[in-house]
Amino acid sequence: MKVVKTIKEVREIVGGWRQEGLSVGLVPTMGYLHEGHQSLIKKSASQNDRTVVSVFVNPIQFGPNEDLEAYPRDLNRDIKAVEEAGGDLIFNPEPSEMYPGHFTSFIDTTETTELLCGAVRPVHFRGVCTVVGKLFNIVTPDRAYFGQKDAQQLATIRRFVRDLNFPLEIIACPIVREDDGLAKSSRNTYLNAEERQAALILSKSLKKGKEAIESGEKDAKTIIAIIKNSLQSEPLARIDYVEVVDFENIQRVDKIEGETLVAIAVYIGKTRLIDNFIIGTNHS
Amino acid sequence: MKVVKTIKEVREIVGGWRQEGLSVGLVPTMGYLHEGHQSLIKKSASQNDRTVVSVFVNPIQFGPNEDLEAYPRDLNRDIKAVEEAGGDLIFNPEPSEMYPGHFTSFIDTTETTELLCGAVRPVHFRGVCTVVGKLFNIVTPDRAYFGQKDAQQLATIRRFVRDLNFPLEIIACPIVREDDGLAKSSRNTYLNAEERQAALILSKSLKKGKEAIESGEKDAKTIIAIIKNSLQSEPLARIDYVEVVDFENIQRVDKIEGETLVAIAVYIGKTRLIDNFIIGTNHS
Repeated sequence: MKVVKTIKEVREIVGGWRQEGLSVGLVPTMGYLHEGHQSLIKKSASQNDRTVVSVFVNPIQFGPNEDLEAYPRDLNRDIKAVEEAGGDLIFNPEPSEMYPGHFTSFIDTTETTELLCGAVRPVHFRGVCTVVGKLFNIVTPDRAYFGQKDAQQLATIRRFVRDLNFPLEIIACPIVREDDGLAKSSRNTYLNAEERQAALILSKSLKKGKEAIESGEKDAKTIIAIIKNSLQSEPLARIDYVEVVDFENIQRVDKIEGETLVAIAVYIGKTRLIDNFIIGTNHS
Repeated sequence: MKVVKTIKEVREIVGGWRQEGLSVGLVPTMGYLHEGHQSLIKKSASQNDRTVVSVFVNPIQFGPNEDLEAYPRDLNRDIKAVEEAGGDLIFNPEPSEMYPGHFTSFIDTTETTELLCGAVRPVHFRGVCTVVGKLFNIVTPDRAYFGQKDAQQLATIRRFVRDLNFPLEIIACPIVREDDGLAKSSRNTYLNAEERQAALILSKSLKKGKEAIESGEKDAKTIIAIIKNSLQSEPLARIDYVEVVDFENIQRVDKIEGETLVAIAVYIGKTRLIDNFIIGTNHS
């Protein structure tokens, strides 16, 4: 597995592939890869001749009181995970490579970033859009892969790619879960044994909301109440938000119609976890 | 001269050129082309196999009290000017093609946009960066051409292209002037005969500042005073700003050292005109 640290090296390698007429997929990650990331890499490997995986803990998407320093990192483990899943190149830049002196430019998008995680993490999506836009310009992929786990991020990236005409296709991939239902996340590593057990309340509560919808419930407030009641049954859980929104615009809806995202963020101890489902299409 | 109105058509044509291995230059304009624009098109034609000229009066770079509606437009005249200068394709989209419903994403850059025109036109550079970034993603040129006439715009575009890693080269071209010294501008068409004569005070006053520097003057305040005194001798002129800034960061300097921009904005009647010179390199 080739690992490169500079923008120049990535461009040279991708430029060589382009001269051979090969297609290129990009999987942007913050590393500490799990089966969720690997599902993206596998999907990319199945649709493109070459797959680049970026491993970069992006400082500008963390707020001042967030877990930038604590965020788990293990490049050797990531190299094996990329190899196993069929990736071809890892781009692992230093922050100084991505953000040189006098860095002052940003990609920002409103509407999809107002609620959910955007409401409590004000600089987060500006940081995500900026780094993802940079990676698009560095790697110039044909397709880029994002997990539905970060559903608001997915909707936000789709929006800015459409608005700013980035010449590539965004491919969404379903949430990958542990056998007991917990959505895979690099942040699961923060949980102790008791918290790990308590964290099951996220997927369990979403399941109750989904079952209600499948039984004919269409009222957003009722669905939110069902999910909140369930989450509150877990003493270690503290609700950040439970929201029912249009998946394209990430704006609240009163009734379930069209493609709807039901999303939650919950603290288990000090660890903030997110999970969701999308209804109204063939999303998982 | 082929004129296309849709993003899809531009991409098809440029894609065809790419398959033939041809290089592509882009000259973004708001139309009503003059010899200044033509010098950019000629430069592009000399450095690239094909040259795309975009003609688009970009609504989002105009403030609410600016001249969006009045801005001069004449596509037939522009077609002739592009032909004459050696361009290959005109991209002339409608605003609805560039800004579809729920358009919410922007490219923004600080520092270079704080002073000069940025200080008095708060949304202007966000609109410029956004439309230029879109054009880069639509046309995917190897090189893009901008005039030194809009020096702050040039510094701002260079900054966001560097920060966001847009994969292209920015080429700066010198100011083109009328025989009597007035910098060419589509907005010169707003001037009546008396104002046209009065407008000469811009280039004349800059010339005095430049002569002072060439005679050894290094103090920014002194140079500003020389230029202001000269501008104030013209009764029809009202100074918007006279500034001496570092050309890379567009921040004020006390002394002339390195690459320095001396920039002015002056109302002649109701028409706001800008002009400048750069010293410390071989810029004109």
